[in-house]
Amino acid sequence: MGTDHVARLTSRISGARVVVVNDFITEKAEQIAAGIDGCRAVADPLDAIADPQVDAVVLATPGPTHEKQLLACLEHGKPVLCEKPLTTDVATSLEIVKREAELGKRLIQVGFMRRFDHEYAQLKSLLDSGDLGRALVLHCVHRNPAVPPSFDSAMVVRDSLVHEVDVTRFLFDEEVTSIQIIAPSANPAAPEGLADPQIAILRTASGRHVDVELFVTTGVAYEVRTEVVAEKGSAMIGLDVGLIRSHSGGIRGGRITPGFRERFGQAYDTEFQRWVDAVHSGGNVDGPSAWDGYAAAAVCAAGVESLNSGLPVEVTMVDRASIPGA
Amino acid sequence: MGTDHVARLTSRISGARVVVVNDFITEKAEQIAAGIDGCRAVADPLDAIADPQVDAVVLATPGPTHEKQLLACLEHGKPVLCEKPLTTDVATSLEIVKREAELGKRLIQVGFMRRFDHEYAQLKSLLDSGDLGRALVLHCVHRNPAVPPSFDSAMVVRDSLVHEVDVTRFLFDEEVTSIQIIAPSANPAAPEGLADPQIAILRTASGRHVDVELFVTTGVAYEVRTEVVAEKGSAMIGLDVGLIRSHSGGIRGGRITPGFRERFGQAYDTEFQRWVDAVHSGGNVDGPSAWDGYAAAAVCAAGVESLNSGLPVEVTMVDRASIPGA
Amino acid sequence: MGTDHVARLTSRISGARVVVVNDFITEKAEQIAAGIDGCRAVADPLDAIADPQVDAVVLATPGPTHEKQLLACLEHGKPVLCEKPLTTDVATSLEIVKREAELGKRLIQVGFMRRFDHEYAQLKSLLDSGDLGRALVLHCVHRNPAVPPSFDSAMVVRDSLVHEVDVTRFLFDEEVTSIQIIAPSANPAAPEGLADPQIAILRTASGRHVDVELFVTTGVAYEVRTEVVAEKGSAMIGLDVGLIRSHSGGIRGGRITPGFRERFGQAYDTEFQRWVDAVHSGGNVDGPSAWDGYAAAAVCAAGVESLNSGLPVEVTMVDRASIPGA
Amino acid sequence: MGTDHVARLTSRISGARVVVVNDFITEKAEQIAAGIDGCRAVADPLDAIADPQVDAVVLATPGPTHEKQLLACLEHGKPVLCEKPLTTDVATSLEIVKREAELGKRLIQVGFMRRFDHEYAQLKSLLDSGDLGRALVLHCVHRNPAVPPSFDSAMVVRDSLVHEVDVTRFLFDEEVTSIQIIAPSANPAAPEGLADPQIAILRTASGRHVDVELFVTTGVAYEVRTEVVAEKGSAMIGLDVGLIRSHSGGIRGGRITPGFRERFGQAYDTEFQRWVDAVHSGGNVDGPSAWDGYAAAAVCAAGVESLNSGLPVEVTMVDRASIPGA
Repeated sequence: MGTDHVARLTSRISGARVVVVNDFITEKAEQIAAGIDGCRAVADPLDAIADPQVDAVVLATPGPTHEKQLLACLEHGKPVLCEKPLTTDVATSLEIVKREAELGKRLIQVGFMRRFDHEYAQLKSLLDSGDLGRALVLHCVHRNPAVPPSFDSAMVVRDSLVHEVDVTRFLFDEEVTSIQIIAPSANPAAPEGLADPQIAILRTASGRHVDVELFVTTGVAYEVRTEVVAEKGSAMIGLDVGLIRSHSGGIRGGRITPGFRERFGQAYDTEFQRWVDAVHSGGNVDGPSAWDGYAAAAVCAAGVESLNSGLPVEVTMVDRASIPGA
Repeated sequence: MGTDHVARLTSRISGARVVVVNDFITEKAEQIAAGIDGCRAVADPLDAIADPQVDAVVLATPGPTHEKQLLACLEHGKPVLCEKPLTTDVATSLEIVKREAELGKRLIQVGFMRRFDHEYAQLKSLLDSGDLGRALVLHCVHRNPAVPPSFDSAMVVRDSLVHEVDVTRFLFDEEVTSIQIIAPSANPAAPEGLADPQIAILRTASGRHVDVELFVTTGVAYEVRTEVVAEKGSAMIGLDVGLIRSHSGGIRGGRITPGFRERFGQAYDTEFQRWVDAVHSGGNVDGPSAWDGYAAAAVCAAGVESLNSGLPVEVTMVDRASIPGA
Repeated sequence: MGTDHVARLTSRISGARVVVVNDFITEKAEQIAAGIDGCRAVADPLDAIADPQVDAVVLATPGPTHEKQLLACLEHGKPVLCEKPLTTDVATSLEIVKREAELGKRLIQVGFMRRFDHEYAQLKSLLDSGDLGRALVLHCVHRNPAVPPSFDSAMVVRDSLVHEVDVTRFLFDEEVTSIQIIAPSANPAAPEGLADPQIAILRTASGRHVDVELFVTTGVAYEVRTEVVAEKGSAMIGLDVGLIRSHSGGIRGGRITPGFRERFGQAYDTEFQRWVDAVHSGGNVDGPSAWDGYAAAAVCAAGVESLNSGLPVEVTMVDRASIPGA
Repeated sequence: MGTDHVARLTSRISGARVVVVNDFITEKAEQIAAGIDGCRAVADPLDAIADPQVDAVVLATPGPTHEKQLLACLEHGKPVLCEKPLTTDVATSLEIVKREAELGKRLIQVGFMRRFDHEYAQLKSLLDSGDLGRALVLHCVHRNPAVPPSFDSAMVVRDSLVHEVDVTRFLFDEEVTSIQIIAPSANPAAPEGLADPQIAILRTASGRHVDVELFVTTGVAYEVRTEVVAEKGSAMIGLDVGLIRSHSGGIRGGRITPGFRERFGQAYDTEFQRWVDAVHSGGNVDGPSAWDGYAAAAVCAAGVESLNSGLPVEVTMVDRASIPGA
């Protein structure tokens, strides 16, 4: 993702320059830096964050390093766009929320890029318009053609479901209060031991129902579909196929996006452009916040617990009002 | 439905004549009979069944009368097409199954008409072809624009969900073993006291997952959608709109079927034509059986229990092998 | 088609019995008759028509025999459902129109079954409702996967285009006044000498434009699509795919109907049921008339002329008002 | 469009700065320049082009001024992205082609933005892949909800059809050799005297057929649809609706893009980003060329002639090979 984001900043986004690159593998950082005018590789991520030439930071580093790096960004007062997860556990995520709140200025944006996707934005705007009345139910489908061999059952919750948790909170403007993970009999094509598919059942504070099909070894394509069922109608995104073709086998249809890059490329670009614009304007960044990262982490932690127990689990979160500024 | 079926038999189906009509309201039966050449109204339903001119019986009478009428059909050895439910409780449904099994000849067909719908038949045939590999998950949506004022929360389970239970058993060729009904916060437009929407979570004998959205006060149209997610792809029916129109409001789309008559008219016609053909051929009828009616009743009874308790409920059914001939 | 229609009348349509069958190949007729209770084969088609047991006639005989057989039906006063073409040339078609008009009773219905297709009926009804305002343009696509080796360029006009001509007259309620056939460079996969695809450009009496793509060697499926563009919106039929499937190649789509039987099976059934009902009622049949057959023939004759010359050709037709009763 | 492009260059495109703005209305240019860091308004367009700070030029000026401004760009050796038309007549367009060819370096790109639209690019790539075999026929639909009062019948050809001419040449990689404009009876809602809709019939050098529905007073939305019919299947773009909604009127569908900005916003952005990248790289720009502008103008000129005469008109163009470097 780091390489993707460097390419985005240097060749598709207006108003930003990549001046410092850091990577755990120094040679890689140097190689990337060499390809960009006026860009240097810096060996230590904290030095990179502290670098006086650096106005703002993009974190696409491994999750376990986020806590320390985010704290460094806060310390230096630098806006940071942090790929999810915020941190790897709920407690440290909450700690980050508190530290930022103490600063009295929003510096952290979490990389929930779907909020910037045209279709999700359209769906959100339809809900906010009131035309559909009260939203009642959300159906989500999240399918990947394949996952790396190291992918385990809990990662389905933490890495895939986390997006749907944020979508739920984004569309419904409220917290998720309980979660249950159902593991039906597994796909014969899934690696031994991987619970796949999984079904997540969420309930929100006001009692709305959300169900999510998570299926990461479909062998088909990257399919993300979201349907809101509301008082005065329903709306669905993600069935979209641009080019409709009639094939010699007598099939009429279109190509589904093969991966997340194709499906959410526009969302990433828009996310970055708006973030760069916000940084330039000197105001607060206004994308998904540290709190959004914390809340998603809390729901996913409860989800992993449910995956193990098979029972519904209440989501444990602090009261947002107890942290002034969060 | 009775009037519908009379019209079907007299004007769209080949090979059948309506010779006797019975209705609780005698005048109605007489009025219908008067419109059909060689047809008489008979005041008592059991007399109608026993009538020597009657070769086969269609029951579109109220559920509570089914038990006695079905037993009469069995006694007279007459094939009977019985609108769902088989009977109004699980115990009497089982009793009917046993009585028919003792006869050693299938006489009862239950009116689960969806099995005769072109789209469901296509989906079943796709699953049976093996092209999708093992079926893993089933998502169902069942939406009605409105229900009569007398419709209560349990009727959502017994009258709407029952069709999805049969669809599950038809598509997956196995029994449903547990069911949970989730009642999210209700549609503000639903009548006071009606739990609507409801979400049903089913699990089958081999561990497959089924979820069903039941929503009977949508104000939109009659929307029935079914998606099977399988090892090698997925398939969905029910998104279909024949005529696509571009409207002056800048909307492109099509009319959704307003009611079940429009959606399943073809299914009813095909169901009746095949049943009439089977009766003529002298062989057994081969549509949904008394056992299918019993199994659906058992699942729905567990569903109503879950609706009340909010917890998952195991479905209690006898072992089919314990009833030779069932 | 004859065999299809016999099956239709005996097993899917209410109110008709097949009592006499005739075929050029006597054995075939006898074989079919043998399978139907109370049905005889009759060697001479005119004897079959004259048979006192025969109340109404279905002609699925070769076009060149139609003239004589239709005249026989008129002579005996028997309603006849005649597969297109009415006759094989414009002059004899007109003669048939005149003879029937002299009788003062409509007996002839021409087998333009699309008028009975649910989608075409819906489109016609939308146009008649006035919701779309004045219809301005019609785009038609008519694609066959393959044609028999004997199919020649003029047959594309006479056998395929003829349906679109009738659709035009049906939807727009006016005559076609000129036609031009454009033959672009041919499909390499088409047989040597077959002009395929062909594009037909029609103009109606009030100046509306119709274009038709005729392509009979697509190798894909049977695709019939019709779009009306009107003052207040547009409407399209024929894009319909019932079951939507996600395939392992990353394609989402559905099966297109392989042939006309699958696409228009419902239309044929409805056409026959209504015709049988009309015959029973003793009133006039009200489907496509001899005049509709004559008009389509006149347009197609001009089309064949244009195919040869490459130029637009005016359609020559008598004034309908000059034939009282037509 | 000028304002759109300034916004694009300053806030969505990487690698470009707007340093000089010119507009016929000086105040407007000054106002725009005032909003951009380091940007000046220059009163004379030729001074703006000559300005040493200007590396490359975007022409969104009225068509009649293009000739002189393009020649100035060529003279100063500056790459120029020129909104269509290249010039307002065929002769001067050809003159521009020749002048650029003499330079031996491509400096001119014409603003046929559709070539950069994801869907058109996907369609082109599908054709180039050979999967569809030989392309045979192209159906285009170009609908606008409304046009300004000054819009006349020839402008439908010059301003709307011109895009479809370029799409034809882009997809088929060959010239258009003849064109006929058919003017059916007009939309009652169209202004008096405006021939709308119009149907354009094109033929290409190798004998392919193209038809285009041009309809600029639909009152509906901006609908651009393109279907290629080929030897081994067909493919269509433009039916796309992202968010599918079920409305209370029983309609399921999605919003069609209201205008060209919504439909082709991505195409304009991509067009500009690639052009800026090409200018930076110092190589030749590789988008649609002056020749593409000349060819489109030649076809449209023949189209206007056909609109007046009602007859097919051969397109007159010089042989490209006669202009070395073109």
